[in-house]
Amino acid sequence: MGRWEPGTRGRLAQNALELFAERGFEATTAAEIAERAGVTERTFFRHFADKRDALFHGGELLEAHLADVVARSEGSALELVRAALGSAAAAVETNPERARTRDAVIATHPELRERELTKMDGLVTALRSALRAKGVPDPSALLAAETGVAVFKVGFTRWAARPGSDLPTVLAAAFDELADLLGTTQR
Amino acid sequence: MGRWEPGTRGRLAQNALELFAERGFEATTAAEIAERAGVTERTFFRHFADKRDALFHGGELLEAHLADVVARSEGSALELVRAALGSAAAAVETNPERARTRDAVIATHPELRERELTKMDGLVTALRSALRAKGVPDPSALLAAETGVAVFKVGFTRWAARPGSDLPTVLAAAFDELADLLGTTQR
Repeated sequence: MGRWEPGTRGRLAQNALELFAERGFEATTAAEIAERAGVTERTFFRHFADKRDALFHGGELLEAHLADVVARSEGSALELVRAALGSAAAAVETNPERARTRDAVIATHPELRERELTKMDGLVTALRSALRAKGVPDPSALLAAETGVAVFKVGFTRWAARPGSDLPTVLAAAFDELADLLGTTQR
Repeated sequence: MGRWEPGTRGRLAQNALELFAERGFEATTAAEIAERAGVTERTFFRHFADKRDALFHGGELLEAHLADVVARSEGSALELVRAALGSAAAAVETNPERARTRDAVIATHPELRERELTKMDGLVTALRSALRAKGVPDPSALLAAETGVAVFKVGFTRWAARPGSDLPTVLAAAFDELADLLGTTQR
């Protein structure tokens, strides 16, 4: 979500990502990231707790963005979630190379994958709260949020596996497919 | 899933859980768990890498159980997932107190919550593989697996918040509600 991160913090995150991709996550130090960004190591640690943090710094901004879209949209619980995640997907496409590189770095480390899952769980919490603030009562709010993020994960995985594909399009197809999956269920 | 864990390993896991609940996760040592189970600390470490591991040891068995139910069931992708998770839910109800205590311990530690999310992601992978083995092609297999586990999380959360509720019943309601959520979506 590079466009939400201007200034030193964003530059550090970008340089961190480049180094992780070039040399590997383990082999990269905070000092090297700071050096490439042209700041001191101390400045790095003013922005991030550790090098891992530089890969996950956009989380709160993304959560705020999702909450904002839900707040100003209209529709059913799942439509609100879909609108919010669709907007996030469009934001990813403003710098797809960054998201693809980040995904490849995360895939190489179980520790990073674990953190990414926690970040996704944070998106569920943010969406659920935003839905509740909008008057959606709770089991539905949580269910719509969990389901929406599950579909987002599927869409993102599919997009990452297909260079050149467009995330909002892939995500919309995944949401449509969920409706089909349920539609063909005999109950 | 205590019923799948007989013998020393299961006894150690049970004693670990009791101690975590009584004294807190941080304050409990592997030596204390071993002592309560009446074995040496060395025996504890033959079964588990660390005390956290004693809380998550059932994961592979649960994955195998889900795969097994999918393999011997019939229906659409989502019906297969629903059958497998419903069976897991029924297994939880053979010892609900254990699952509730475990959930309460996990809720107290972000590190444990993170590991639990990873375990849930393992269930997605297991379900997806089982569906593919059954001839369900991949975007649908992944989508059904992710969605099913998302619904399971919602059902489990709701069940944990309501003492005395029945997990298979709560889970079935969550699956039905997902169909409703999608049904009311104007597309």
